[in-house]
Amino acid sequence: MAKQARAIHTRRLILEAAGEVFDEYGYESATIAEILGRAGVTKGALYFHFASKEELARGVLSEALTTEGVMPQESRLQEWVDVGMVLAHRLPREPLLSAAIRLSADRKARDLFGTSWPAWISFIAGQLTAAKEQGELLPHVDTERIAVLFVSAWTGVEILSTALDGGDSLEERIALLYDTILPGVAVPGALRALDTAPDRGTRVWDAHCAQREEEAASAAS
Amino acid sequence: MAKQARAIHTRRLILEAAGEVFDEYGYESATIAEILGRAGVTKGALYFHFASKEELARGVLSEALTTEGVMPQESRLQEWVDVGMVLAHRLPREPLLSAAIRLSADRKARDLFGTSWPAWISFIAGQLTAAKEQGELLPHVDTERIAVLFVSAWTGVEILSTALDGGDSLEERIALLYDTILPGVAVPGALRALDTAPDRGTRVWDAHCAQREEEAASAAS
Repeated sequence: MAKQARAIHTRRLILEAAGEVFDEYGYESATIAEILGRAGVTKGALYFHFASKEELARGVLSEALTTEGVMPQESRLQEWVDVGMVLAHRLPREPLLSAAIRLSADRKARDLFGTSWPAWISFIAGQLTAAKEQGELLPHVDTERIAVLFVSAWTGVEILSTALDGGDSLEERIALLYDTILPGVAVPGALRALDTAPDRGTRVWDAHCAQREEEAASAAS
Repeated sequence: MAKQARAIHTRRLILEAAGEVFDEYGYESATIAEILGRAGVTKGALYFHFASKEELARGVLSEALTTEGVMPQESRLQEWVDVGMVLAHRLPREPLLSAAIRLSADRKARDLFGTSWPAWISFIAGQLTAAKEQGELLPHVDTERIAVLFVSAWTGVEILSTALDGGDSLEERIALLYDTILPGVAVPGALRALDTAPDRGTRVWDAHCAQREEEAASAAS
């Protein structure tokens, strides 16, 4: 591996380990020693990338706004569904993502680092505004307020899903969230064409991974 | 004050102080000393009621399932709205209630004490089932799943409301939650009659308090 690629790989290993440890222990009880042990890197390597536990937490939070895997769709509402469903698919599999929610829900960590919620809210508001301009939303819908409501509800569903059954049914619960709020915000014609099946996130993500591998293979050949 | 009434009053003072401290510091960082200071009671009085920080947390959680102030209504959907709106009115004013959410969202405290979520879910499921039997819900609605979704979304709205603006607009946000999910679950006829105005919780709660005072006055005369 080239030197730069190795540095990126090491940084990623450390962030993933930090995500696991913050997720399990919370910010306060997490230790650099535990993160070092999980990452399997040297103390020097860790401190080269992150000077402190605070910087590690900031690093984890900065990874939280991700729409990787979501493809452009004719229906902007479908793109909105895809963002939430892909995240519901990835989150139980990627401690880095669930750690960001844990850190945001922790009052002390939140005071120190802020949260990724405002960034998510403005991203979703943008999606809803595009859907509205395309005539997919009911005329009375306030896209900014619905964005706040959606990010709030999504977060609550994730927190209770983890508490009630370890997060196993997150995709099913988020699909129900969309199915329940869509009739209150979308015009009937736009509604009918939407795919909100619980496995939507899995399918979209798998297609993205297959495409990524194909591209990597053709770049290597 | 009679001896028993004084003991109940002291217990309440301690629980409210514990609620404040858990709410601000989280379970881990909360100390008995801080709770004692806020409650303004002696160490002996505190340990008479609660043997440990664990027992204080259990005491706080056991206060969290409250439907005080909600009156029977002809529409069972209106009762469901009233439960969520009265709680949205009371929660920013009663640290005991918001502390229960903080403790439930804290993974470590949750592992030790459980949460009040299952009790809330089964209460709301009962309300929705009654509404369905009365023909107020759409036939496809699964009352148990909607109860889980609603308690999840309510919790997420509370957490983000606290994070984004200190909880000031909780009633407005919960009103929007009802307005957004009701079209997906209620029959149009039931919908039209509902009062989901942001000040619904305030009005219901004030009427309850006025009635309580009247009863106390007539009992004393």
